[in-house]
Amino acid sequence: MPLDAIPILAVPQGLHSDERSGNAPALLREIAEMLRRFLANGETSAIDLHALPLTPADLEWLREQLGGGEIAITLNAEGESSLNETACPGVWWVTHRNPNGAVDSEFIEVADVPDLVKAHHEDVVIGLDHLELLISDLSKQRAF
Amino acid sequence: MPLDAIPILAVPQGLHSDERSGNAPALLREIAEMLRRFLANGETSAIDLHALPLTPADLEWLREQLGGGEIAITLNAEGESSLNETACPGVWWVTHRNPNGAVDSEFIEVADVPDLVKAHHEDVVIGLDHLELLISDLSKQRAF
Repeated sequence: MPLDAIPILAVPQGLHSDERSGNAPALLREIAEMLRRFLANGETSAIDLHALPLTPADLEWLREQLGGGEIAITLNAEGESSLNETACPGVWWVTHRNPNGAVDSEFIEVADVPDLVKAHHEDVVIGLDHLELLISDLSKQRAF
Repeated sequence: MPLDAIPILAVPQGLHSDERSGNAPALLREIAEMLRRFLANGETSAIDLHALPLTPADLEWLREQLGGGEIAITLNAEGESSLNETACPGVWWVTHRNPNGAVDSEFIEVADVPDLVKAHHEDVVIGLDHLELLISDLSKQRAF
């Protein structure tokens, strides 16, 4: 089911942030579908939680249903991101914060590990260059 | 170069923990070689730091040379493990602690991300089963 087909209603006007809209349970069904696709062919996917008509109470309910997992990841790059595994392995709750600590965006990601955490080939190449330079410098200093 | 071929000498007897043995710089060369293999064919590898004749001062020196990266991972499962990216992308400093918080083992891992962090297929299957059960229970409670 494509994301734009998730049957979610607009938040009723006048709903308070501590009220549930009724939209969150459909997300659990969508996450289950995302997991089935991931198991079938390795397809990773994500839901932008702030793009959906969800109240803070909906997000809290969803987080409670998914539960907490064993793995917590922190990424510090122009603001801190947390990428926490839920009690459902392969389902990650990702929160990006701006440099002031305010939440910028939240995603549900379905993957073996969120792509942001993986070292990418071009960065490894640059890191190896630096390491080789360091080794060369240390050799000149007779540290070896 | 296989790990058992690293040219490392035994720690000289009588060396204090705050003295460097002279064995750590060879590890930097080995890590560079591990990175080259990773870039060439995706081969991941690890060095068990406690299996080598290194002093605490050697480990501190090595950690300083590798520097700190952007990603810090915590895994809580019968003791806390930290899996921290170094300033060399693809090189991770992994520390496993026992339930009392004492360091059990330390490894250098070369990989896009340490394997321990990845959700494995069989765990995702079990998690999906639980999620489907939860969805079924919620449906019965008319939460949907």
